[in-house]
Amino acid sequence: MKMEEQDMKNQIADINLKALFLGEKGENADLFKELLLKMVDEHVGWRQNYQPQDLPVITPQDKSSQGFQETADHMRSVFNVLSSKLRANSLPWHTAGRFWGHMNAETLMPAIIAYTAAMLWNGNNVAYESSPGTSQMEEEVGHEFATLMSYKKGESWGHICADGSIANLEGLWYARNMKSLPLAIKEVAPEFVEGKSEWQLLNMSTEEVLEILDQIPDKVDEIKAHSARSGKNLEKLGKWLIPQTKHYSWLKAADIIGVGLDCVDSVDVDDNYRMDIDKLEAKIREYADKQIPILGVVGVVGTTEEGQVDRIDKIVALREKLAKEGIYFYIHVDAAYGGYARAIFLDENNEFIEWDKIDEVYAKYNIFTEKCEWLTRDIYESFKAMNQAETITIDPHKMGYIPYSAGGIVVKDIRMRDVISYFATYVFEKGADIPALLGAYILEGSKAGATAAAVWTAHKVLPLNVTGYGKLIGASIEGAYRFYHFLQGKEFKVGDKTINVYPLTKPDFNMVDYVFNEEGNTDLAKMNKLNHDFFDQASYVKGGLYHNEFITSHTDFAVPDYGNSPLPYVQSLGFSKAEWDREQKVTVLRACALSPYAHDKDVFTEYAEKMEKAIQQKLEAIYKEEN
Amino acid sequence: MKMEEQDMKNQIADINLKALFLGEKGENADLFKELLLKMVDEHVGWRQNYQPQDLPVITPQDKSSQGFQETADHMRSVFNVLSSKLRANSLPWHTAGRFWGHMNAETLMPAIIAYTAAMLWNGNNVAYESSPGTSQMEEEVGHEFATLMSYKKGESWGHICADGSIANLEGLWYARNMKSLPLAIKEVAPEFVEGKSEWQLLNMSTEEVLEILDQIPDKVDEIKAHSARSGKNLEKLGKWLIPQTKHYSWLKAADIIGVGLDCVDSVDVDDNYRMDIDKLEAKIREYADKQIPILGVVGVVGTTEEGQVDRIDKIVALREKLAKEGIYFYIHVDAAYGGYARAIFLDENNEFIEWDKIDEVYAKYNIFTEKCEWLTRDIYESFKAMNQAETITIDPHKMGYIPYSAGGIVVKDIRMRDVISYFATYVFEKGADIPALLGAYILEGSKAGATAAAVWTAHKVLPLNVTGYGKLIGASIEGAYRFYHFLQGKEFKVGDKTINVYPLTKPDFNMVDYVFNEEGNTDLAKMNKLNHDFFDQASYVKGGLYHNEFITSHTDFAVPDYGNSPLPYVQSLGFSKAEWDREQKVTVLRACALSPYAHDKDVFTEYAEKMEKAIQQKLEAIYKEEN
Repeated sequence: MKMEEQDMKNQIADINLKALFLGEKGENADLFKELLLKMVDEHVGWRQNYQPQDLPVITPQDKSSQGFQETADHMRSVFNVLSSKLRANSLPWHTAGRFWGHMNAETLMPAIIAYTAAMLWNGNNVAYESSPGTSQMEEEVGHEFATLMSYKKGESWGHICADGSIANLEGLWYARNMKSLPLAIKEVAPEFVEGKSEWQLLNMSTEEVLEILDQIPDKVDEIKAHSARSGKNLEKLGKWLIPQTKHYSWLKAADIIGVGLDCVDSVDVDDNYRMDIDKLEAKIREYADKQIPILGVVGVVGTTEEGQVDRIDKIVALREKLAKEGIYFYIHVDAAYGGYARAIFLDENNEFIEWDKIDEVYAKYNIFTEKCEWLTRDIYESFKAMNQAETITIDPHKMGYIPYSAGGIVVKDIRMRDVISYFATYVFEKGADIPALLGAYILEGSKAGATAAAVWTAHKVLPLNVTGYGKLIGASIEGAYRFYHFLQGKEFKVGDKTINVYPLTKPDFNMVDYVFNEEGNTDLAKMNKLNHDFFDQASYVKGGLYHNEFITSHTDFAVPDYGNSPLPYVQSLGFSKAEWDREQKVTVLRACALSPYAHDKDVFTEYAEKMEKAIQQKLEAIYKEEN
Repeated sequence: MKMEEQDMKNQIADINLKALFLGEKGENADLFKELLLKMVDEHVGWRQNYQPQDLPVITPQDKSSQGFQETADHMRSVFNVLSSKLRANSLPWHTAGRFWGHMNAETLMPAIIAYTAAMLWNGNNVAYESSPGTSQMEEEVGHEFATLMSYKKGESWGHICADGSIANLEGLWYARNMKSLPLAIKEVAPEFVEGKSEWQLLNMSTEEVLEILDQIPDKVDEIKAHSARSGKNLEKLGKWLIPQTKHYSWLKAADIIGVGLDCVDSVDVDDNYRMDIDKLEAKIREYADKQIPILGVVGVVGTTEEGQVDRIDKIVALREKLAKEGIYFYIHVDAAYGGYARAIFLDENNEFIEWDKIDEVYAKYNIFTEKCEWLTRDIYESFKAMNQAETITIDPHKMGYIPYSAGGIVVKDIRMRDVISYFATYVFEKGADIPALLGAYILEGSKAGATAAAVWTAHKVLPLNVTGYGKLIGASIEGAYRFYHFLQGKEFKVGDKTINVYPLTKPDFNMVDYVFNEEGNTDLAKMNKLNHDFFDQASYVKGGLYHNEFITSHTDFAVPDYGNSPLPYVQSLGFSKAEWDREQKVTVLRACALSPYAHDKDVFTEYAEKMEKAIQQKLEAIYKEEN
């Protein structure tokens, strides 16, 4: 192992991000092919040398036959079509400065190559037996996730999921079954919850419940059989509270998991599109007054539409405060988007950096190229408190720069794993220190070992702290801030009209929302149309994606989802409350800034000029169409 | 499009399977690399030519810098470790004749290369906007699945899932929400179900329910809000019946979906490990007598442990019969394993082949190299009737020879899609003829466009009928039968002992279960130990996987899961009923025969000798350890 450790010496002095991507113009195609072919050749060598006395079954005569040639040519034709379709119908997110849209960008070269390599071995991580190598990698990745969240070593766990929706669903599954356990204990081992009312049972902490289970290992199976998994008591578990900026995947999750949409309630967001903690408290108290428990609260680190970061620290503090009044709720942090960003807060020893040391550490590791006003104490504390949540969703395929699809979930207390586990004999072997049958501990079944290899390799190349991912995340935030400043106060002239640009808010992370508005316009519908028209020009809608010189995405903030939280912003643009009440929504443009290159001042400056020209042309096209 | 069609002319006279795999010894490494590099180069060209006036951001100076070199070397070191781990800890399923274990084998070269290629573009099929090319491919694949199942063109649908567990879960989600709709209609639009009792409401057919929804499109949203998605009425929906050979994923699915384990009941299997239809009928009637409805019945096409095929035709016939008595149940077919095998029943026009024409068609397309006794009328009718099921799970990563992970679900009536759908504005654009936001219609969210590209490409190379996949499936079945005959009546001598081999049953598909038993042994525990010891010798357990000359997998048939259905087999080996009652399980070895080469008589004959020798050695090692 010593040589392995040395080979991978997982922190190099000053990692160069430019060596880790294929490149905007394929600059690293040489390195990419070198490693890709090395891995393919080593795989072929492995095949050849398994029982080398066995001769090839595909003979030279086979290969020279007409049938073989025809089949091979047929396959070649199919690849011509595939290549054409991909080139004609894909998004050019590889550009350093022209794609400011969806959550997509260059992905890490090591991840792509590792995926391809491991795919050749085709491990299935559902069971250790069928994928020893990649199962070990997934276990390692799970512990790396736990360390990233500052969960206690050895007491926590994590694994890879198909995507963030599945991870969130699994988090809700954990919450549902945990919450139902006290009712089950009451039925199976009532002496352990003696004297507790139903209200008290439904407000026991996760810790308390796990402590009881620890004392009665022989009864755990029976207790589980009486838990929510039986189908009972789902309607008693209370409300699942999510931020008003709610993602439809949470509604879907409540539907699927059987607690139902009726148990979902949303908490208003503040002007910064973060959950309003005062309103959260009021809502919980209101329910408590009616003896309706809270199944759990979802805090979001990196909202899908705004990239904002909920005050996880305040949610945690609220839970501590209410615990004194006998109220407890599960906390799930949806950090599908922002989870990897916690790497920017961990020092070279994976310790959460003290607030007053952070600038020094960032300077040491060149996290930003210039002073960046991104980090506030709010954001710092929000990230810090994540380690108090029971479960956290984190998506490698978002800020992990891993190709789709790779989600993940992290579990604070590994004992929770038993609360949802199943077994099947044919894949269960005792004695291994990692789950012999991972499929019995997670929501999914068969899963690609290749995904684990991709994430594992990326983490080895880029450690999950300031020496690795922290630097990449820093680059993306700095790029986002350059774009944010580029937009601020920008104006365009089209004929006799002036079009101004207004960013939505100072970004908590690396997403920038913004709108165009015609100077003097007080008609909200008109502004919405302008922005929607702009999206059409700057997306696949008008065709010719490959020739488009500026690409963005868009979203609507509408009353049914957002209530009046967009009103202050809308009013700041000069619209009246009456306008808002009439239109009921604001259409905003949305830029996820993920490029690993745009933080560079020279690169950005060059592209700023090009973007300005492209935006100008699009606006002109829109006004021309109107006339 | 004409050129595209011609290029891909999707049926070539006699497809040569040997041109489609990398090869046991990497024989096709040349072709593999040719196509892989072509796709990489064309991707790089695409990057270069998007706005060619933009200069590369990674400069020659960057690449010559010390930091770049250090980072690249660091990455190279990580790849050395990755390669070593994969080579040392993977299963050699690529061998044509030494791996008879888990459901794994060579995967299709076109699928591997297409995955890699599409991964470079990193489409996310959750939304059309972010992956136009691969979203179109997924839509095509869905319709190909529907055609494979003989569902009506234009009225059916399918999509790719993370895996079979997720597809089954989605099937149960469909069933749960469909079943609950009449109760919701009763609340929202009672005039459409006037006079129906709750029992009648819970026994309405899927067709009837969809017809009502068609009449009241304006009320669909409200009805959905009152359906099981609200969290209400879950306990009223009745029992979910699965075969006794139940897979743990079904228990997990019932847990997750909220109907609960208590609603799952299993139906005994017969001596052939197929669901006993008489017992199914008796069970349904028993529940009906108690006014407990049947949520649905799961038929399995390719059971996980035996590869057997339930009599789907009889389940369908039973439903038709009971419908006359006012009883209706949803049918979900779990064909995760066997789904692709339906291709062997479709002619070149994708029509289900008539029974009396089938030999002729097989002869025409060289489906088998010799007369194969596999196909019986039972199996034929079971496959034929699949088109009567509401939903079907099919896993490309099993008999589709696609790398993990790629599952799939097929839906008979596309209108059902609306029963589970959600929307989110930021990815929903009207006007497209394919879902603009696929994530709103399926269980998962983000998903790899690359998976769709891999499956799409494989289907274009190998059509889903006798001209393509049918031939590959035929090869695997013929290989399985060669292995089955190899085992039948085989005996080994170890010292003065004779060890006999007994296959479990004539395979319905391509899986062969078998046991070793010492001649004259009447101690079941002893036989179980022998087979478990054999597994240890023939798997990762004893280490040295790469040097192992014969590899298999194993499973236990135990009373809690199987009841007494293994008894006839156990008795046929000479054990008494008392022995069975004492031991309560039989350990069997399990071989999934997926190799595309083992059907060849010469190949198999050569390996038969090698296997015999390897098995002999393992048995000797076991008996030696004992002494």
